[in-house]
Amino acid sequence: MDSYLIQVNGQGDHVPLLDIHLKTNGNSMSLGKMKGRKPRWAVRASEMSKKTFNPVRAIVDSMKVEPNPKKSVITLSLGDPTVFGNLPTNDEVTRAMKEALDSGRYNGYAPSIGYQSCREAVAAYYNCPEAPLEAQDVILTSGCSQAIELALAVLANPGQNILVPRPGFSLYKTLALSMGIEVKFYNLKPEKSWEIDLKHLESLVDEKTACIIVNNPSNPCGSVFSKSHLQKILAVASRQCVPILADEIYGDMVFADCKYEPIATLSTNVPILSCGGLAKRWLVPGWRMGWILIHDRRDIFGNEIRDGLIRLSQRILGPCTIVQGALEHILHRTPPDFYHNTLSILKSNADLCYAALSAIPGLQPVRPAGAMYLMVEIEMEHFPEFENDVEFTERLISEQSVFCLPATCFEYPNFFRVVITVPEEMILEACSRIQEFCEMHYQAAEGAQDLECDK
Amino acid sequence: MDSYLIQVNGQGDHVPLLDIHLKTNGNSMSLGKMKGRKPRWAVRASEMSKKTFNPVRAIVDSMKVEPNPKKSVITLSLGDPTVFGNLPTNDEVTRAMKEALDSGRYNGYAPSIGYQSCREAVAAYYNCPEAPLEAQDVILTSGCSQAIELALAVLANPGQNILVPRPGFSLYKTLALSMGIEVKFYNLKPEKSWEIDLKHLESLVDEKTACIIVNNPSNPCGSVFSKSHLQKILAVASRQCVPILADEIYGDMVFADCKYEPIATLSTNVPILSCGGLAKRWLVPGWRMGWILIHDRRDIFGNEIRDGLIRLSQRILGPCTIVQGALEHILHRTPPDFYHNTLSILKSNADLCYAALSAIPGLQPVRPAGAMYLMVEIEMEHFPEFENDVEFTERLISEQSVFCLPATCFEYPNFFRVVITVPEEMILEACSRIQEFCEMHYQAAEGAQDLECDK
Repeated sequence: MDSYLIQVNGQGDHVPLLDIHLKTNGNSMSLGKMKGRKPRWAVRASEMSKKTFNPVRAIVDSMKVEPNPKKSVITLSLGDPTVFGNLPTNDEVTRAMKEALDSGRYNGYAPSIGYQSCREAVAAYYNCPEAPLEAQDVILTSGCSQAIELALAVLANPGQNILVPRPGFSLYKTLALSMGIEVKFYNLKPEKSWEIDLKHLESLVDEKTACIIVNNPSNPCGSVFSKSHLQKILAVASRQCVPILADEIYGDMVFADCKYEPIATLSTNVPILSCGGLAKRWLVPGWRMGWILIHDRRDIFGNEIRDGLIRLSQRILGPCTIVQGALEHILHRTPPDFYHNTLSILKSNADLCYAALSAIPGLQPVRPAGAMYLMVEIEMEHFPEFENDVEFTERLISEQSVFCLPATCFEYPNFFRVVITVPEEMILEACSRIQEFCEMHYQAAEGAQDLECDK
Repeated sequence: MDSYLIQVNGQGDHVPLLDIHLKTNGNSMSLGKMKGRKPRWAVRASEMSKKTFNPVRAIVDSMKVEPNPKKSVITLSLGDPTVFGNLPTNDEVTRAMKEALDSGRYNGYAPSIGYQSCREAVAAYYNCPEAPLEAQDVILTSGCSQAIELALAVLANPGQNILVPRPGFSLYKTLALSMGIEVKFYNLKPEKSWEIDLKHLESLVDEKTACIIVNNPSNPCGSVFSKSHLQKILAVASRQCVPILADEIYGDMVFADCKYEPIATLSTNVPILSCGGLAKRWLVPGWRMGWILIHDRRDIFGNEIRDGLIRLSQRILGPCTIVQGALEHILHRTPPDFYHNTLSILKSNADLCYAALSAIPGLQPVRPAGAMYLMVEIEMEHFPEFENDVEFTERLISEQSVFCLPATCFEYPNFFRVVITVPEEMILEACSRIQEFCEMHYQAAEGAQDLECDK
């Protein structure tokens, strides 16, 4: 999931009103319906719509900058693996969809939480002795976004808070604020491959904390937590009695030298709502097939959270029935080679990109272990021309036509995010332009030359 | 759209908690995180999830009744035209989906409000001189349910109210209450083919009224408003300066002797959000392709409502991209015969059903003019055995294995709703069983025999 593609048409602050008396206090919908006053038109957007705020959009929209017309545009900013055509989904996935269409059996309404047979298929696929799953533990949703939305909506009331990683995917904040839920950011440590600062995490818990969001593998970091680190996260949640909302949409997307552990397989007591979907691993993010896996072996969520999720699912019903009809075949028939091939491309791109960026003065990439991203620190003291990461990436566009997302979008200034799903030659060209850009603007900091001499 | 298929697993009122101190005031999520107290597990479902209530589900679930094992079950309760296989979608619709799949162009993220080309296609399809539409006036949604959800969410704040038809589709209330919006019911008049009681409607408007929901053609009534009636509704909205949320998912589904007028084509000033989709007319409700058409020629909604809709759409993104990719072809290539054929089946079923039910003592069907439904009044005074429509339909199941929805589900006691998309022979058999049932239980009211003699 990535919000980057989302479109916003102009942000008008005021309604252009014709023949209208504007009421000055703003919020009231329809004015003057009191007796003796003539009603007048004044339709205002709801508070909720105003609170629904996409920081990526706001930042990117404010970057009023044109690419260099002499250089072709290279986009390393879109968290959509399908953009360049180098990572098509598997033929079996398409075939499963056609079979579902031809059967004529998947045109009607499904239950709002998905067909029973599909929920069984997902449960069977992710079931394991450490974290057993049955159909009743699976809620199908319209993409992983809706999975996260429902999970937040069932766990938190307005006025409560959730703990969210920094840097982290912006949707958590967008959803939470739109629901009146407070967001508290816990720090990740770049020097520790983006592990969680556990003390900081635990210090943020208070009596209003509704859940901890754990995103592993991570967008935007490309990090993958070790088993022991996940156990320590669980220990915090267990001590503080706070459930976990696990965003595992990049689950299983880890490089060969690394192992992905679903957090629920390590939990003995902490109840977990794990959100996932077809988007990234099967390379079909537009199909909007997501799910929530309910892990609750100590019966702490109990029927209440399950029933709450079911009730909430009834507001707009679930995912497209054709994708549901194809789901079992997609899970069973997609050949293992397909996954391996995707990961070997990602790993190769990550290695190339990491090596190239490591050699650039003033940049400090953090080596990723999975997902589709890599974060790069900008040593801002060496680029005194630029105020921050937003200005740095802005100028990278106007001079080199290379688009990267400033990590301010992820609440983490002075970094930028690189997407590694783009074709190899494009990554290499982009890295070479980034090098040219940095060499052009790099200034050795005071004392830096002495240090160089010491080497 | 119909909520009937929605599944609910047991309604546990309390969480089974292990080793837990229950806090008595209920709502707090995680207890005892104050200093000096040991935290304990107590995860409660949110208030919003508890407020999300589906009356159809509640009523149907409480009807603990088994069909008569000696008679085959006939289901006239499901608002899903695909259930019996007699109304398949058109081959061109399926073909358009396969082409979208094969193109490989529709696997990635679309903008949250839908592809520009699809929005253009919908705008062109519904554009007309009286209510011009451009791509920017179209928001694609995950089914008409999400269209209604977004429209309500942008127009109303918690504490405001919306005016909703009685009888009416239950989703309006489900969504509104989940968002803390009050519902006020305006009456429809069965004796006037379910026209709105306009005086009653206007009397309900107050300074907190956010919108009027107008559902035409109607679920559950099968009624279609005339041009002059729609103009009178618009006159109320205009006088009171209240926008209209038009649920037009059954738009164009009217019988040959009747004309459907999109309400926006008659509005000179009232701003309208018209909700529709592929579900009913193209017979693919499970595909979750809906839309909002923004009609605002006097610029009363202005940018504020448009931007609000766009922002809200970013919470979970829009409909499945494969259906989006197929949409233009679906709109253009579906042969006119397909629509005519569906309507002629519906009209024929409606006539048969109306004629059969009219002849049954104690029942008063109201003749439909479109959509897929027919409402039947139960003259309860002739069925003193039964307390209400719920008991009447319950006994109809246990004695005759015929399922109809009691209109209490639509806030309208003493009626039941019949779905007319089922195969003809099934409708006839059902009507014959309903006749047997009514003849068995009918009791002439006092004085009724005298009246009969007067004829």
